[in-house]
Amino acid sequence: MMNKKAAYTVAVVGATGAVGTEMIQVLEERNFPVGELVPLASARSEGHEVMFRGQSLPVQVLEPNSFQGVDVALFSAGASVSKEFGPIAVKAGAVVIDNSSAWRMDPKVPLVVPEVNAHALSGHQGLIANPNCSTIQMVVALKPLHDAVRIKRIIVTTLQSVSGTGKDAMDELAEQTRQLLSFGEAKVEVYPYQIAFNCLPHIDDFLTNGYTKEEMKMVYETRKILGESSLPITATTVRVPVFICHSESVNIETEQKLSANEARAILAAAPGIQVYDDPGHNLYPLPIDVVGTDAVYVGRVREDESVPNGLNMWIVADNLRKGAALNAAQIAEELIR
Amino acid sequence: MMNKKAAYTVAVVGATGAVGTEMIQVLEERNFPVGELVPLASARSEGHEVMFRGQSLPVQVLEPNSFQGVDVALFSAGASVSKEFGPIAVKAGAVVIDNSSAWRMDPKVPLVVPEVNAHALSGHQGLIANPNCSTIQMVVALKPLHDAVRIKRIIVTTLQSVSGTGKDAMDELAEQTRQLLSFGEAKVEVYPYQIAFNCLPHIDDFLTNGYTKEEMKMVYETRKILGESSLPITATTVRVPVFICHSESVNIETEQKLSANEARAILAAAPGIQVYDDPGHNLYPLPIDVVGTDAVYVGRVREDESVPNGLNMWIVADNLRKGAALNAAQIAEELIR
Repeated sequence: MMNKKAAYTVAVVGATGAVGTEMIQVLEERNFPVGELVPLASARSEGHEVMFRGQSLPVQVLEPNSFQGVDVALFSAGASVSKEFGPIAVKAGAVVIDNSSAWRMDPKVPLVVPEVNAHALSGHQGLIANPNCSTIQMVVALKPLHDAVRIKRIIVTTLQSVSGTGKDAMDELAEQTRQLLSFGEAKVEVYPYQIAFNCLPHIDDFLTNGYTKEEMKMVYETRKILGESSLPITATTVRVPVFICHSESVNIETEQKLSANEARAILAAAPGIQVYDDPGHNLYPLPIDVVGTDAVYVGRVREDESVPNGLNMWIVADNLRKGAALNAAQIAEELIR
Repeated sequence: MMNKKAAYTVAVVGATGAVGTEMIQVLEERNFPVGELVPLASARSEGHEVMFRGQSLPVQVLEPNSFQGVDVALFSAGASVSKEFGPIAVKAGAVVIDNSSAWRMDPKVPLVVPEVNAHALSGHQGLIANPNCSTIQMVVALKPLHDAVRIKRIIVTTLQSVSGTGKDAMDELAEQTRQLLSFGEAKVEVYPYQIAFNCLPHIDDFLTNGYTKEEMKMVYETRKILGESSLPITATTVRVPVFICHSESVNIETEQKLSANEARAILAAAPGIQVYDDPGHNLYPLPIDVVGTDAVYVGRVREDESVPNGLNMWIVADNLRKGAALNAAQIAEELIR
């Protein structure tokens, strides 16, 4: 799906951000055949450097001619940057893997989680969208169950970490926590309200239907990735005072009955999933344990007695890795396979 | 339902705990006609004092003869203390309002949230159970909707504060947070894992069905309070790094259709509820705002498009007040009305 080369020139747009930093690290860890790494960012990051394979590389200011000779451009600098520079990069001959929401729902743009719908990459037109973090981890866990017993309805509540917002939000959580523990006032800048020792049922903007964009992303993106255009899904997304890793409490109804044991067996055999589910030994996925790892962790699998065929589960993944950088790198790997 | 008096002798068992402290404060705030306050606790609290109406009262060690002359005994010292001393207090002539799980599911013991089922108090036999904190706030919000359109199914995920565990847990959250911010190791004592900057999908003990006791309390207690012995309910309960106030993401299916606007109007007119729901102005209930208040706050009311008659909502209440001390005081007020 891309011309085969021994090594590729890879641009990372938003190279100094929370996800961009992780992208560069993931490319190195996974030995992606990078010939040249081109770290790009806004003028704000001029003079910054990034580390790659033990070398310090100066960050270049993103410009229309930044993509000459670039084979793969990994974008993670927000939707407006993607909208402006994505098509420019494609015109320059790069394949763009975009982590923003800019193109996700465009019917001409594949929205890909490699474990779930790598097939959607074929026939791409240069732009490929990386789904939203909260969607990625949910579809990885639900796809094998859907294949086995057809999911009829999904009800999800997320508990999302501040790194999903970016580095500023991580700093704000740390700073507010320090201020409150020294009996000061928490300074609020990134979120509408204090996030330290609090829960904010508000991620991204509100829409006229009362849902947030984040909640509707989980509905629309999940449908597109699973190829089920009318699958009933409802979401409540909540920001919690956790630095990294999103947790999700997911309830599903299925066409055929699946016991908790059968569900665990199916999940354990599926790609990209680790089952951590042994309540007797207090084994269940935790954000602090999952941070820095690649898998989607599933635990607390329980039969839901309130419907004939229902299951509850608890899904945790590193939102910077599987929820963003790792998934983008896996898409790049699929393209050069 | 109790002999009328000008003033009552009120014992508080567990007077130095998180809930006991709040109970004494609530009795004072609400001008409950307390003649004498008898603060009782275990020998560990010997020498401690509690403040009531500007006076410092020595804590007395709980003993079998502690209840002579006591009219109302408010218990909040765990199920084993309630099981041992509750019947002793009743035999001594007191009415016991018990905040533990000891008697809640006993068919002879009323389980009461005054806004919902005050009628259940009639014919009590001396023991009255205060429901679990996470149940109380949910049933206050759901009762008026159930009366209007009959709830068919409840799916709830809770985000519960550490004060539900007690003072030790509040200290542990503060201490672990300090340790982590100074790049130390978090010392884990109260919970099985670090709670600071983490989410624990584990509240109370695990049962053989994979659910925790906390989750099944929400099922069984809600059914008993609403008088619906087979109402389909499923719960996932999660501990989050918040000091006070529980938040709940609640999804309901109803017999008849209710728009979000209709639901808000019903909730706003119901006792004990404050509707905080104006996304356009970032208005929704937050733990840090609700702490220290009496109402159950409801926001994020949305029609759930994944079923014909569904609603999502976000319910926050102070678990030490409405979830425990306040509800117990309201029960006492009903008894002397």
